Amino acid sequence: MRAVDIIRAKRDGNALTREQIAWMVTGASDGSVPPYQLSAWLMAVWLRGMTPDETTWLTDAMVDSGVRVDLSAVPGIKVDKHSTGGVGDKTSLIIAPVVAALGVPVPMMSGRGLGHTGGTLDKLESIQGFRTRLTLDEFRAQVADLGCALIGQTDEVAPADRTLYALRDVTATVESLPLICASILSKKIAEGIDALVLDVKTGSGAFMAREDDARALADALVGLAERSGLRVAALLTQMDVPLGRTIGNALEVRECVDVLRGGGPADLVELSVELAALMVWLGQGRPSLEAARDAVREALADGRGLAAFRAIVQRQGGDVGMIDDPATLPQAPVRDMFTAPGEGYVARYDAGLLGRAAVQLGAGRARAEDAVDPAVGFDLLAVPGDRVVAGAPLIAIHARTAADVAAVRPMLAEALTMSATPPAPRPLILDRLGLAATR
Amino acid sequence: MRAVDIIRAKRDGNALTREQIAWMVTGASDGSVPPYQLSAWLMAVWLRGMTPDETTWLTDAMVDSGVRVDLSAVPGIKVDKHSTGGVGDKTSLIIAPVVAALGVPVPMMSGRGLGHTGGTLDKLESIQGFRTRLTLDEFRAQVADLGCALIGQTDEVAPADRTLYALRDVTATVESLPLICASILSKKIAEGIDALVLDVKTGSGAFMAREDDARALADALVGLAERSGLRVAALLTQMDVPLGRTIGNALEVRECVDVLRGGGPADLVELSVELAALMVWLGQGRPSLEAARDAVREALADGRGLAAFRAIVQRQGGDVGMIDDPATLPQAPVRDMFTAPGEGYVARYDAGLLGRAAVQLGAGRARAEDAVDPAVGFDLLAVPGDRVVAGAPLIAIHARTAADVAAVRPMLAEALTMSATPPAPRPLILDRLGLAATR
Repeated sequence: MRAVDIIRAKRDGNALTREQIAWMVTGASDGSVPPYQLSAWLMAVWLRGMTPDETTWLTDAMVDSGVRVDLSAVPGIKVDKHSTGGVGDKTSLIIAPVVAALGVPVPMMSGRGLGHTGGTLDKLESIQGFRTRLTLDEFRAQVADLGCALIGQTDEVAPADRTLYALRDVTATVESLPLICASILSKKIAEGIDALVLDVKTGSGAFMAREDDARALADALVGLAERSGLRVAALLTQMDVPLGRTIGNALEVRECVDVLRGGGPADLVELSVELAALMVWLGQGRPSLEAARDAVREALADGRGLAAFRAIVQRQGGDVGMIDDPATLPQAPVRDMFTAPGEGYVARYDAGLLGRAAVQLGAGRARAEDAVDPAVGFDLLAVPGDRVVAGAPLIAIHARTAADVAAVRPMLAEALTMSATPPAPRPLILDRLGLAATR
Repeated sequence: MRAVDIIRAKRDGNALTREQIAWMVTGASDGSVPPYQLSAWLMAVWLRGMTPDETTWLTDAMVDSGVRVDLSAVPGIKVDKHSTGGVGDKTSLIIAPVVAALGVPVPMMSGRGLGHTGGTLDKLESIQGFRTRLTLDEFRAQVADLGCALIGQTDEVAPADRTLYALRDVTATVESLPLICASILSKKIAEGIDALVLDVKTGSGAFMAREDDARALADALVGLAERSGLRVAALLTQMDVPLGRTIGNALEVRECVDVLRGGGPADLVELSVELAALMVWLGQGRPSLEAARDAVREALADGRGLAAFRAIVQRQGGDVGMIDDPATLPQAPVRDMFTAPGEGYVARYDAGLLGRAAVQLGAGRARAEDAVDPAVGFDLLAVPGDRVVAGAPLIAIHARTAADVAAVRPMLAEALTMSATPPAPRPLILDRLGLAATR
């Protein structure tokens, strides 16, 4: 085979064969196809698309480029969750331990934040000592012992995806449904899972701002997961305002502990319960989705979820004292307040703008090589629907310097919408997909 | 500027600005834009196209990436010819000296053959000692002294085109009208010319086999040349059967000398006279095209064209004895005959197939790094329209070995079409473009 012929076939809108796709992906892994041919191919894929079969073969080939974790020694249906990312999106820290506590194994590999969306690894690392880099042997042993491990993707997992993603990032070929879906699912399949729950977000803080685009992504992900032999369910959820009341790594860990203690903000609890219940149900941990919801609520109320999280933190080297007393989590040196400019209702905080303001504080990263500050971020003291008077505290700012506070104030002012009348309630779960196939 | 933004804009079908295009081309020249970004951009251009303005700016930027030869010291309108390539297409060796002999300067930079099409440099180098690599100073001086020089493109001419072409060749992005046109014209403009005659060929032996595609290329080239400030005229010509009776480097030089002595095959003479007349007319060497045709025919008949060619060969180090006595040109050690399989009319020799058979003999190259053999090739003893008996000699084969003869025999049999009745005459000049704009 020759790369130029495969590029030409895709350029001309033809479907590639399984062998052609596998050959290109192998070439990406072992360097036998040079980057300039891969990027021309990626652009042709971006513009011409891929059939469902091609996308499945691409996913298979990316899985085969590395190790597929063998979790057959762990009994039961292994389930993971993937979110397309958002602002204040911290559900993984809640649902992974809760689902594991209910007897369904969760081998979870997560990513870091980039741009205005946060990352599970960054949040976990705000707990002193927490190791997100385990070997695959440590990972397997922990899933067997505790039912859950929370780590980053290792180098052995889908290396072709890393090569292709790095190229896509600099050649304007990221936003392609088949490439996005194959990238997401190849890494999940390589974890050794049997079932997957997807949280596909839409709104200003999401990867797909427009609901139509997010729905198309959810459809494509569910179809690909099914063709790849996974049990799968997906939620289409709102990410136009932040999820929960905190944005920033340590602040979000504190909020997750609140939820694991049976408290926490209603929207975060609602979404966490629904995602965890889907995982428990897909994992056959309960006979019905409703029974799974009840079980999740109980495990949050009676502390089993918190105990599971504490055990995971301890096993991965984290300071459990920070879980027992979240006030000991990293604290920012500068605290200031953003207040209501007038009287009225808080109608909306633009999630995308708040996410970018958090990056400005240092809570996220503009480039993959940037470091994040665990302590900084925002605490939303009033949320959409609350009525406030002029000067009322709206957002507590946790910053490194007064200059950072000054830099983000105009961003917060831009993100805030006030209204004279109560804003219409904003549904959190917009749609459900893939249930029929798994029911 | 960032390459990824320029790639994205083209991916999305937007027209780029002059500054964006210049920035990418500069990046191709100086290496500041890596090959994987250039190739993604080229694929986006292939699939989304370029506006006439964008193509003009691309051409300008490629010219500006190197030296533009300053021929202002040579009086008169400098004219060149460009052919899109064919089999037996040897007109440059005839028309460049004839036009120069008529007082119109011809600063001609040519290419080598690749695939089934021959190259002017390869033909010239079959003359012992002929130097096609002159410095730009030598080139300028010779054009000033003799009115003509016949050389290869130097490294100083449009280096960005070389970088981009090498990438296009391996990323299936060659066949794009804006990229083809900018590549051709940037190299011609950099020669320092004021006017250009284009010979755009169509048929099995041409770069564009289909007439519609060739016409679109001719239209695009003429439009781009006009926008780039050149006086331009184009012929759309037939390349379904070879031009003239010889294919192969030394054989073609011999045939050109025949034409320069006032003889030669009718089709080659007709096309050479027409192209040369257009050059003379665009170069204001004669007041009308008809007067230019008469002048060219005279210069062929009275030996002025031959004298000019002889002077060029001498100046560029070639053995003029080979021009005075073409029997001293390189001779192949093996001569054999392909004969008529039956009685009837020769209806057609497929130009593409004969071109590939010539490559098989060693007259052309499959890859750019291959060497060519000056002596081998074919001599068409009967041409379309001739009536022959079974066993009559059709094609004299000039080869290195008997094995090569055996290898090409089936290709010649496949290329030949015989008919019981005389074939319809095949017009050579199919259309004329760009005359209105230059009249």
